[in-house]
Amino acid sequence: MRATVMYGAHDVRVETVPDARLIEPTDALVRITRACICGSDLWPYNSMEPSTTGNRMGHEFIGLIEAVGSEVRTVKKGDLVVAPFAWSDGTCEFCRQGLQTSCIHGGWWGGTELDGGQGEAVRVPLADGTLVALPVGPDHALMPSLLTLSDVMGTGHHAAVAARVAPGKIAAVVGDGAVGLCGVIAARRLGAERIIMLGRHTDRIALAQEFGATDVVSERGDAAVERVRGLTGGLGAHSVLECVGHGESMLTALSIARPGGAVGRVGVPQTATMPAAQATFYDNITIAGGPAPVRAYMEELLLDVLEGRIEPGRVFDRVTDLDGVPDGYRAMNEREAIKVMIAF
Amino acid sequence: MRATVMYGAHDVRVETVPDARLIEPTDALVRITRACICGSDLWPYNSMEPSTTGNRMGHEFIGLIEAVGSEVRTVKKGDLVVAPFAWSDGTCEFCRQGLQTSCIHGGWWGGTELDGGQGEAVRVPLADGTLVALPVGPDHALMPSLLTLSDVMGTGHHAAVAARVAPGKIAAVVGDGAVGLCGVIAARRLGAERIIMLGRHTDRIALAQEFGATDVVSERGDAAVERVRGLTGGLGAHSVLECVGHGESMLTALSIARPGGAVGRVGVPQTATMPAAQATFYDNITIAGGPAPVRAYMEELLLDVLEGRIEPGRVFDRVTDLDGVPDGYRAMNEREAIKVMIAF
Repeated sequence: MRATVMYGAHDVRVETVPDARLIEPTDALVRITRACICGSDLWPYNSMEPSTTGNRMGHEFIGLIEAVGSEVRTVKKGDLVVAPFAWSDGTCEFCRQGLQTSCIHGGWWGGTELDGGQGEAVRVPLADGTLVALPVGPDHALMPSLLTLSDVMGTGHHAAVAARVAPGKIAAVVGDGAVGLCGVIAARRLGAERIIMLGRHTDRIALAQEFGATDVVSERGDAAVERVRGLTGGLGAHSVLECVGHGESMLTALSIARPGGAVGRVGVPQTATMPAAQATFYDNITIAGGPAPVRAYMEELLLDVLEGRIEPGRVFDRVTDLDGVPDGYRAMNEREAIKVMIAF
Repeated sequence: MRATVMYGAHDVRVETVPDARLIEPTDALVRITRACICGSDLWPYNSMEPSTTGNRMGHEFIGLIEAVGSEVRTVKKGDLVVAPFAWSDGTCEFCRQGLQTSCIHGGWWGGTELDGGQGEAVRVPLADGTLVALPVGPDHALMPSLLTLSDVMGTGHHAAVAARVAPGKIAAVVGDGAVGLCGVIAARRLGAERIIMLGRHTDRIALAQEFGATDVVSERGDAAVERVRGLTGGLGAHSVLECVGHGESMLTALSIARPGGAVGRVGVPQTATMPAAQATFYDNITIAGGPAPVRAYMEELLLDVLEGRIEPGRVFDRVTDLDGVPDGYRAMNEREAIKVMIAF
C-alpha cells in the first residue's frame, strides 16, 4: 500500500510500504477514506533530523473497517469509523476517568512501528476502545466536520474545558490555527459571553468571527496583553485557551488571564520550562490541559456535528489526494492553507 | 509602640516605631495579643538587601480592637479578632469570588507603609472585609490553633483544595514546614485515603503522622519520585500539595503527580520559570494555587478549630515575647523550631 513517510525536515514522501494487516486479535484493519495534516505535524516538518527509516505520518482519519480480530466486539467489518489521535483500551484506570491519552496500554499512530493516518490503510490496535462508528456513509457532506473529531475539534474543546469556560465568562483564544478556531467553537458552545481571538491571519480571523469570536486582537506580546486588558476592564480573561505551544504564546496566555482564572493549554509545548511562575502564583491562575482525550469527547461532539449545531469542518480550506500530501505540508507550513484534508 | 523591623538579611530588630492609629474611617486599631513568625519571613531573612528604612514584619495576628473608624460596621471595640495575611474589602469582584488575596483595594501587612503583626498594635485597613471576630477570650486554650487561621492552616487548606483532594484520593505533601503539616490536616479533613508526606525532619514527620500522614518519604529528588511511584502502583499521587517554593521541590511535586492529577502550590516560588512544562503537558497535570485566600476559608476552618476537630496550633513548638522575635527568626531559620508564636 502507499503511505506518507517523513524522512527529515521538509522531506515528506508518499511511497510504498508494507500492507497494513491484522496482528493482534484486538486489532481492526481500516481502509482510509479521509485523513488530514495536523498543525503538530509541522513541528517535525521543520525540525526533524534526517532519518534513513523515516516516520509514518498522520493521526487523524476516518475509514471503513475491512476486517477485525477475533476479540473485537464493538465495531465490525463495513463500519465507517473515526479514530482519535491516540489509541486506547477504554478499560484502564485512566480511560475510565476519560483520560484516554494516558491509557496504560495505549499509544500514538505512526512513527516507526505503526501505520499512520496519511496512508491507504491502518492497523488499529485496541479497536474496541479506540474506534467510534459513524451513522453515515463515507461520502456524507459532514465528512470534514466528522474528521475534526479525530483531533482539532476535540482539542479545542479540551482547551475550553481545561480553561473552565462557562456561561457568562470571558474567553480568550491564543492562536488562529485550526485548533484555535475550534477553540472558538468550543468556547461559544460552552456559553462564553465574550470570545477574544488573538491572531493575525485575515482569513482565519474572518472564520473565527463566523464561529463566534466577538473581539480580535492582532497585536503580539506586551501589546496584545495591553489590548486584552483594555477589553476586559483591566482584569483579563477568565478562561484562556493556549493553542500554539510556543514560549511566547504561552507567556501571552498566562499574562492575559485574570486572577483566579485558568489557562487551558493544548499547543504542544516547544520549551522545557513554563514562564511567569511567580506572576501566575500571585494571581492564583490555574494551568491545565495537555493532549486532548478526544475519545472522551467524541460522542458528545459527534451529536452536535450530526445535528448541525457546530461546523468545525470549515477549518479545512484545501483538499488533496494522497499524492498531494507533500505539497499539503508545504502549503500549511507557508500558511497558504489553514488545514488540508486528504480524500482517498 | 514597639515592633519588629527587618533591615537586611539576618538583621531583625525590635524597636520603637510610631504608634499605630486610625487614619481612614474604615480602619480598626488592633492591640496584638498573639502573632507569629512565618516560613515566608525566612525568604527575606536570608536574602534582603540592606535597607536604612527597614521593613515592618508580621502578617499573622490575633488582637483586641481598641478603636474603629466611623464606617466600620462588622466589628467593634473590645472584639477579639483574627486577621488574614492579606487585607481586603470583602466587596470587590475578586472578594465576592472568594479570592481576597487579589482584592482590587486590598494589600499586604508590613513593609514601609503599614504596620506588621509582629508588633504591639496594628492599623487594620478595610476592617469590615478583613477581620473576623472570635467567640472566645484572648487567653483561651485554642489560641495557637486560632492563630493558624491567619495563614498556615488556611494555606495548607488552599493547597489541598487547589490539588483537588477528595475522598478516596491519594495526596502527597511536599515540605514538612508548618504549611506542609497543615496541608496534611487539610488533606485528611477533605477525605484523602492516603497521605504521603515528603520531608526529612524527625520531629515534623512525627507530627505529620499524628495529623494523618500514612506514608513518609524522606528521600529527595529522583529518589523521592521513585519512592512515591513505588507507593502508588507506579502511577503517582492524585493530589500534590507543594508547600516549599523551591525549584527543586516544585519539580518533585510535578513529577509525583499522576496523569490527570493536580498540583496545588502554596510555597512562594523562588524561581521565575516552572520546570517540566512538557512532562506535565503530556500527563495533563493541572497546576493551581497561589497565595491562599485564607479569609474565604476562615469561618469554615474556625468552626473545626472551635469544635476540636482539627488542632493546627500544634505546629507551634516555641513561644516568645516581642523581645525574643529576632532569636525566633534564627531558631526557625536553623530548623530548631517549626514555628514560633509571639505572646504579648
